[in-house]
Amino acid sequence: MLFDLDGTLIDSVYQHVLAWHETLEAAGIGLSVWRIHRRIGMSGGLFIKALEREIGRAIADDEAQRLRAAHADAYVRRLPDVRPLPGARELLGALSAMAVPWAIATSGSDKTARPALALLGVAADSPLITRDQVSYAKPNPDLFLAAADRLGADPRGSFVVGDSIWDLLAAQRAGALGVGVLSGGYGREELESAGAYRVYEDPAALLGHLDELGIRSS
Amino acid sequence: MLFDLDGTLIDSVYQHVLAWHETLEAAGIGLSVWRIHRRIGMSGGLFIKALEREIGRAIADDEAQRLRAAHADAYVRRLPDVRPLPGARELLGALSAMAVPWAIATSGSDKTARPALALLGVAADSPLITRDQVSYAKPNPDLFLAAADRLGADPRGSFVVGDSIWDLLAAQRAGALGVGVLSGGYGREELESAGAYRVYEDPAALLGHLDELGIRSS
Repeated sequence: MLFDLDGTLIDSVYQHVLAWHETLEAAGIGLSVWRIHRRIGMSGGLFIKALEREIGRAIADDEAQRLRAAHADAYVRRLPDVRPLPGARELLGALSAMAVPWAIATSGSDKTARPALALLGVAADSPLITRDQVSYAKPNPDLFLAAADRLGADPRGSFVVGDSIWDLLAAQRAGALGVGVLSGGYGREELESAGAYRVYEDPAALLGHLDELGIRSS
Repeated sequence: MLFDLDGTLIDSVYQHVLAWHETLEAAGIGLSVWRIHRRIGMSGGLFIKALEREIGRAIADDEAQRLRAAHADAYVRRLPDVRPLPGARELLGALSAMAVPWAIATSGSDKTARPALALLGVAADSPLITRDQVSYAKPNPDLFLAAADRLGADPRGSFVVGDSIWDLLAAQRAGALGVGVLSGGYGREELESAGAYRVYEDPAALLGHLDELGIRSS
């Protein structure tokens, strides 16, 4: 079971969104907050491409790098407000108890993602693939392929759990079954039309319905 | 044309959401951010009812009043980050130029809503109906009925423009045609299934398509 992080296991999407809003405003780029929300979870590079399209001008590589660094700082300042999503700790614990291998694969950087492990009550060496470790982030499949590889698992026999359409599109490209959660603030219909096999409210609801996915102790 | 305010004319939904999150956390109530987002735009009373359902216990009237006051403070602190949505000023200006009467009707209080008028570049005595002026807020129709009444207009010949399903449900109850905008962060399908006659991205897109609504200079 391969998990996205933000909005899927931890309740951090809105903090990421407002951190981006603050960063872009400071750079003189006015972009509506909902448009940022709809892009969260993409790779930083694709986010910048989408941003160029919205603002109608190119963003140089060094400016993009400065924006990403400023966003990471603005997000880390908001980390004290970030909580695990209901059921996230219990879900990972239950999977471990059932000997179902799991990993986390996020478009975020090591700097923004690493603190989540303690929040989730899992070991600091739990399998975590970040943007720094692959060439292309979501909606490319690389993050989930690397996560499956880390577990020695076939991605085509894996579930990918995520809150955004970028997770579900990447799941399809990885040949995995995508499971959506609403806890990132996207609508159920958006996730279904991006190919979700099932959609649950949050990790707690997913834990309560593992039987629907045919997951049991091995 | 009767407008909701937050997420429809000004880009304030995410600030309201995180202001509620902060307020509830301070009161020892842990509620996922997306669940708050899905309730924004309801009347304060119904928000508290929904909150009671989520947390599984009753909230006394005085506690509810303290929570609402704390939320207003937390939101007002975030006001410096709130911007008009793209096209909002131009849309209100164009309607005025065409002599199409318009009003703003919001589930927010006078304290949180009044500063938006300056942000929108409209007169301080522009027609603004707030929660303080009616018995029941959205999804009850009272706010939009009062707004139509203020204009001397028949609600059944009016458009209601809003970003949330509560606006569109209230529009139906008022007998008005509901027009959705995506700028509050809800999905298009949610708004359509709540009865939106048309859905546009934001006020700028609505302004560019006024002809689709049959609105012209009178």
